[in-house]
Amino acid sequence: VKEAVLGDLCNDLIAKGINGLTPLGSTGEFPYLNQGQRDRIVEVTVEAAGNRVPVIPGVSAAAVAGAITQAKTYQLMGATGILLTLDVYFPLSELQIEAYFRGVADAIELPIIIYTNPTFQKFSLSIDLIERLSKHPNIVALKDASTNTGRLLSVLNRCGDRLDVFAASSHIPLSVMMIGGKGWLAGPACIIPSQSVELYRLCVAGEWSKAKDLQCRLWEVNEIFERYSLAACIKAALEEQGYPVGDPVFPLAPLGGDERSRIREVLNDVATLGPKEPSFRARGRLLSASGE
Amino acid sequence: VKEAVLGDLCNDLIAKGINGLTPLGSTGEFPYLNQGQRDRIVEVTVEAAGNRVPVIPGVSAAAVAGAITQAKTYQLMGATGILLTLDVYFPLSELQIEAYFRGVADAIELPIIIYTNPTFQKFSLSIDLIERLSKHPNIVALKDASTNTGRLLSVLNRCGDRLDVFAASSHIPLSVMMIGGKGWLAGPACIIPSQSVELYRLCVAGEWSKAKDLQCRLWEVNEIFERYSLAACIKAALEEQGYPVGDPVFPLAPLGGDERSRIREVLNDVATLGPKEPSFRARGRLLSASGE
Amino acid sequence: VKEAVLGDLCNDLIAKGINGLTPLGSTGEFPYLNQGQRDRIVEVTVEAAGNRVPVIPGVSAAAVAGAITQAKTYQLMGATGILLTLDVYFPLSELQIEAYFRGVADAIELPIIIYTNPTFQKFSLSIDLIERLSKHPNIVALKDASTNTGRLLSVLNRCGDRLDVFAASSHIPLSVMMIGGKGWLAGPACIIPSQSVELYRLCVAGEWSKAKDLQCRLWEVNEIFERYSLAACIKAALEEQGYPVGDPVFPLAPLGGDERSRIREVLNDVATLGPKEPSFRARGRLLSASGE
Amino acid sequence: VKEAVLGDLCNDLIAKGINGLTPLGSTGEFPYLNQGQRDRIVEVTVEAAGNRVPVIPGVSAAAVAGAITQAKTYQLMGATGILLTLDVYFPLSELQIEAYFRGVADAIELPIIIYTNPTFQKFSLSIDLIERLSKHPNIVALKDASTNTGRLLSVLNRCGDRLDVFAASSHIPLSVMMIGGKGWLAGPACIIPSQSVELYRLCVAGEWSKAKDLQCRLWEVNEIFERYSLAACIKAALEEQGYPVGDPVFPLAPLGGDERSRIREVLNDVATLGPKEPSFRARGRLLSASGE
Repeated sequence: VKEAVLGDLCNDLIAKGINGLTPLGSTGEFPYLNQGQRDRIVEVTVEAAGNRVPVIPGVSAAAVAGAITQAKTYQLMGATGILLTLDVYFPLSELQIEAYFRGVADAIELPIIIYTNPTFQKFSLSIDLIERLSKHPNIVALKDASTNTGRLLSVLNRCGDRLDVFAASSHIPLSVMMIGGKGWLAGPACIIPSQSVELYRLCVAGEWSKAKDLQCRLWEVNEIFERYSLAACIKAALEEQGYPVGDPVFPLAPLGGDERSRIREVLNDVATLGPKEPSFRARGRLLSASGE
Repeated sequence: VKEAVLGDLCNDLIAKGINGLTPLGSTGEFPYLNQGQRDRIVEVTVEAAGNRVPVIPGVSAAAVAGAITQAKTYQLMGATGILLTLDVYFPLSELQIEAYFRGVADAIELPIIIYTNPTFQKFSLSIDLIERLSKHPNIVALKDASTNTGRLLSVLNRCGDRLDVFAASSHIPLSVMMIGGKGWLAGPACIIPSQSVELYRLCVAGEWSKAKDLQCRLWEVNEIFERYSLAACIKAALEEQGYPVGDPVFPLAPLGGDERSRIREVLNDVATLGPKEPSFRARGRLLSASGE
Repeated sequence: VKEAVLGDLCNDLIAKGINGLTPLGSTGEFPYLNQGQRDRIVEVTVEAAGNRVPVIPGVSAAAVAGAITQAKTYQLMGATGILLTLDVYFPLSELQIEAYFRGVADAIELPIIIYTNPTFQKFSLSIDLIERLSKHPNIVALKDASTNTGRLLSVLNRCGDRLDVFAASSHIPLSVMMIGGKGWLAGPACIIPSQSVELYRLCVAGEWSKAKDLQCRLWEVNEIFERYSLAACIKAALEEQGYPVGDPVFPLAPLGGDERSRIREVLNDVATLGPKEPSFRARGRLLSASGE
Repeated sequence: VKEAVLGDLCNDLIAKGINGLTPLGSTGEFPYLNQGQRDRIVEVTVEAAGNRVPVIPGVSAAAVAGAITQAKTYQLMGATGILLTLDVYFPLSELQIEAYFRGVADAIELPIIIYTNPTFQKFSLSIDLIERLSKHPNIVALKDASTNTGRLLSVLNRCGDRLDVFAASSHIPLSVMMIGGKGWLAGPACIIPSQSVELYRLCVAGEWSKAKDLQCRLWEVNEIFERYSLAACIKAALEEQGYPVGDPVFPLAPLGGDERSRIREVLNDVATLGPKEPSFRARGRLLSASGE
């Protein structure tokens, strides 16, 4: 764990207007780190944030007991909330999945954003189950990494008054904002923070036509996230911007020359799309997330 | 095939402002009909349309030769274009899939809307392949029935100047319109034509805030399409509105009492959401589609 | 349809000891043929068989009515039974799948072999459903094209006294015979008929050690069937052996030079593994199947 | 971790003729245990085995470094070999998968059984890759938990002289033994050890007809493993036999009353199928495995 680099990155993201930080989110390499490394990442992030923005670390486990231990550790370190997901090995019934999320929510005091990613994970949450979970006082938001934006409209129609909905990089942020989403927690915000903040500002202001133009140009950043291995992509993009984050954990492979060229090209394309000055800061809402 | 009922339905849809008809689209029962029945459906639809709106029948085959035969038959009957898809039994390589669409496009004179539905069909089209196909002069549009709206933004960024993009019922029409889509070809338009036309009008006019409010309320119609068997759902909804279309083809099962009650409830919820008078007609663009 | 070639092939297969013929089985190109072509293939096969071996054509449809029409047509032509499967477009419930097979079985007089292929088809049959169907007097056998041989042992334990079980090319014939299977209906039998008949003889005789040695050497034939497109593979292998069957239907692609070399190599490897003289003929049981 | 119960179980399995023990195999709850618990299970098992049979613990990690740490820990504890698998979160290329297995094999001195389970894991090994890995001096065997027995025949034909092949509970042990497999590493051996040893003896002796009769009757044990949650099933079956192993780790659910009755029924059905006296012990080959 490169602590100085991580601290610098957090500082810069906050300076550019990012509204929150989610270390150990799914953009990074959390499955490849041991618990000691994970703990240290959260500590460094909390320290760098210095109460300027919320810090919402990712918590993932197979057993309820393991998730509670992680959450309590992060709470003691000063985390503002957790982004909670589930490791499935043996298939679980919907009742068992519900018992996991409810079991963790009952045991901790931090607010919880539930995270579901049907592409990388072996479980999904039905809309009925999301609605039931939304009634738990500690479960306050959903981050959805499916590609199905219609699903989010169903969630918002059913329990949008109780549950904030955030997009992952597989959704078009503009589309999610327009139907009532609250923001996005996604890798691209980590490498194009100014532009992400500007898009967010336009959506919140209801300037849909301008937001559409910016969104269409920024979308190629999400496309490279989908095309390349996530961890390799974000590490290469950060290196391009001067953060010496190194290679991904073996056996993950670093990107090759052509792929790095494409990333450089994309970063150049969108370099001028941010606001003149990064002064805007939304209040009370998470906008995005850095990984590690 | 209930010809009189089909003719009445087409007439009513046109009267309510629908901008096109796609008999043998995927909302209906085309896989269950023999070629004679399919031909008759297209004949009846063309006759009912009476040149007031385009008629774009669905064409689906495993072999190129079969698709060409269907397309030429429908052209002689007066079809305006075709909605072309592919039956896959043995898995096909991307080259073979391209050869199919290109082979049909080379052989016929009608404009082609390519239809891709990864949920029900055993093939998908990569964005690279869509881009290559968009350069064929006879291939003018794409109807996408994935749930992945971000995929459509990638298509629009890459070849939106050559290819019109239409949503199926698995996308949020509002989201697709906002990123540059041209309309939707989808089952709901067949059972709530006035409301669909109104939503379309608001989107074309850039009245995004009003469009959003209407979209959120209409979305439950798409939800019942996803929850219930498509053919059974549309037949039940049409029966509720006075079209005696009968039961789906055996072994498809008609909806039960609870499901019909839910459909009735949804139709009631949205009944008053249409425009005061169904006068609007968009020019030059397909809006939606009837099945059978 | 190359009628003379098909007739010659059927004759030669019978001369080499094959115990049955299944035109329009899944090894061939039935999804690419229209009904007229299918009818003619069955006619030619029945005529070539001349009552020497059973002829069991494949029947496949989405609607019950269509399957019954096909079955009755083939019965009039002299078919001995049918190999029945189901085309699924919209997903069907288990009850609807059962209604399809039961609906066809109730309406026809021929014995039925149910065919299930989870790799290429969008339905599967649970063991509970197979057990229920096995009680229908017209349903006499199962051809399973999964790769899961343990599933066949479960079927045999549950209803092996009422239902004959046949392997497709995805199972090891030796393994299926050893647990109580009755034979195999599979593409390889069409291109290595003598060797297939010899393997069958060894299994029926309980000469397991010899059967094992032969099976291990013949398995590479099944491997090419899995690796290459089925229809292309069988057409190339037949061409190698002097049957001018031509290329697969467009957009299916013929095999390339390397693939043909591999097929030639495999045919050479196993060329000498048949019996000295092709005199054995099992009684009352299907052994294998030719496609087209 | 109930150390006394685990020790007793290991002792009893060895007394009944089991030829090896694989703690932390996939039948148990290893994904739900932290590393400290895992270490203790291996220690207890090695101690109970007392050099009478090999002990081959399961090793699973996402990063190469983590797998090496586990393997070296178990080696110091006295493990005889490891059963190595891979946790995939982000999809890996075949090259990365190969790098993982090769990276671990290069770094440790214990013999390695590679474990692949396409049902529960998000990676598979192609036969080409298995062949390449089989040339590494430390990679000596494969445990395959697919259901595809034909795949194992392909592996045996390609590299059976360098790689021992073991079945998981998803294969029919008889079928795998007949084509040249060396045994099985599977949950059922833990709950019916005598009968498993007897089946193994019959296969090794080439008494195929008797082996077939025994296999057909024992298969229902594998069926309950497939039908019920693995960990819950094995815990219930052990409780039935007097081992107080307790409930599975939350949120895994214990079996209900009907399921326990079915397990009791199955255990009764096969209770008398073992040998008269549990004296047989195969030499130099693993037969089966206990979990926890």
